[in-house]
Amino acid sequence: MGESCGGNLLIIGGNEDKQGECIILRKFIAMAGGRESRIAVVTTATEFPREVGDEYRSLFTEFGAESSNILFIANREAANDRHNISEIEQSSGIFFTGGDQLRLTSILGGSGVDAAIRRSFRQGTVIAGTSAGASVMSDTMIVDGSSSDTPTKSMLSMAHGMGLLEEVVIDQHFAQRGRINRLLAAVAQNPHILGVGIDEDTALSVSPEGMVEIVGSQTVTIVDGKSIIQTNISESKPFDPLALTNVILHILPSGFGYDLKRRVPHTSKTK
Amino acid sequence: MGESCGGNLLIIGGNEDKQGECIILRKFIAMAGGRESRIAVVTTATEFPREVGDEYRSLFTEFGAESSNILFIANREAANDRHNISEIEQSSGIFFTGGDQLRLTSILGGSGVDAAIRRSFRQGTVIAGTSAGASVMSDTMIVDGSSSDTPTKSMLSMAHGMGLLEEVVIDQHFAQRGRINRLLAAVAQNPHILGVGIDEDTALSVSPEGMVEIVGSQTVTIVDGKSIIQTNISESKPFDPLALTNVILHILPSGFGYDLKRRVPHTSKTK
Repeated sequence: MGESCGGNLLIIGGNEDKQGECIILRKFIAMAGGRESRIAVVTTATEFPREVGDEYRSLFTEFGAESSNILFIANREAANDRHNISEIEQSSGIFFTGGDQLRLTSILGGSGVDAAIRRSFRQGTVIAGTSAGASVMSDTMIVDGSSSDTPTKSMLSMAHGMGLLEEVVIDQHFAQRGRINRLLAAVAQNPHILGVGIDEDTALSVSPEGMVEIVGSQTVTIVDGKSIIQTNISESKPFDPLALTNVILHILPSGFGYDLKRRVPHTSKTK
Repeated sequence: MGESCGGNLLIIGGNEDKQGECIILRKFIAMAGGRESRIAVVTTATEFPREVGDEYRSLFTEFGAESSNILFIANREAANDRHNISEIEQSSGIFFTGGDQLRLTSILGGSGVDAAIRRSFRQGTVIAGTSAGASVMSDTMIVDGSSSDTPTKSMLSMAHGMGLLEEVVIDQHFAQRGRINRLLAAVAQNPHILGVGIDEDTALSVSPEGMVEIVGSQTVTIVDGKSIIQTNISESKPFDPLALTNVILHILPSGFGYDLKRRVPHTSKTK
């Protein structure tokens, strides 16, 4: 973890509950100010911005947000539009929908809206993202990689993310899509980076001090490679299977937390 | 690891190469005595004993075995047949095909052939098994359990295996079927037990002293739960997600080994 750099994050593994208790989405509204929250839904990642945006806007209104607006930013022109920048500046919570993480970064990256998001985040605006919207939060993100295969050096495709959370790599739909091996491959490339795999309907809230709490019905898998003793990643060929010894793994459900700075899990409350 | 208890094991994660270099199957013949090896192929696990048995018999003959016979043991009567018991007693290598591990144990368990296998093993006969034939080697075996789901207490169905390798639980087709979570759930139930997940076309050879060498094209995942600090498995309900902190994980390809007694991985040779 680098320096404390702003507000709170809510990083969601995708497919969060929208019919039942909606624990995760309600948590977002509570974090963003409850009845005083002003929400901006950013639909850039998805190819179905109208449907996806409308659903979140309705839910956030139902959960008591003071306002909830969809920002249809589908190209770089819109990403530099004064109106969109102003909406970001006035929001207390920004929500990134799922879709394609490369759409998010390629359309928003370096734009006026991007700069406004970073500014707002430093000033305390809560940033939430689900699925692709979760992946983009790290400085280097996974954009592709086969699941449920033996880990190899070439199984991963990485790109620059938005860098709101440093020194981690995030993967989503984690248990549901069998992504442990691509996360291990990412951590093997640089064990300084902490691997965070988030299951569906599960989220981690991250405080500016790097304290994580798990929310939702499934689990978060933490892959800590700092203790790795042996790896063959530098000398192996692209399709050689990886070797990795002494990785530390934590499986954390709701009720557990994790200290990103000290790399220590804990029970956050009695269940 | 309990006491040294016999010969060598070759435990194969399923779908081993039968067309190319056949490294794993050739390794079996070499372990069993090469040109002097007398092989018994036990097809009990499979519903297609003729096809499966014929394929292995041909391959073992091609690889230089002195003799290679199929034991078609499909019921308990055959499992107590004098001829079959005698075939086991005369073999230097026994090979269990894939199929259903409960067929293997429910048909063989407690029979004359079962007793002969254990006797032969203690006297140095090499035992190999692939897929279901790999799972049965441990004293408690996984017979069912959903893959690629968040780990829960109820995701696993376990049964008594043949107990040729103690204090481990083996899973096969491991990366290919995304089985890490069911192995973690098994280890969480008793961290004294070491979790061993074997990928397809990959095997571990185990010496009587508990020294493991990895063979084949993919990897073996070792889940060591001895260092687990927190788990919720005793107090959680059957469908609650598991909590597990501080699991140690090793991913080992060919060229690596593992000491089952000391629980330490190592490089077995320079690659």
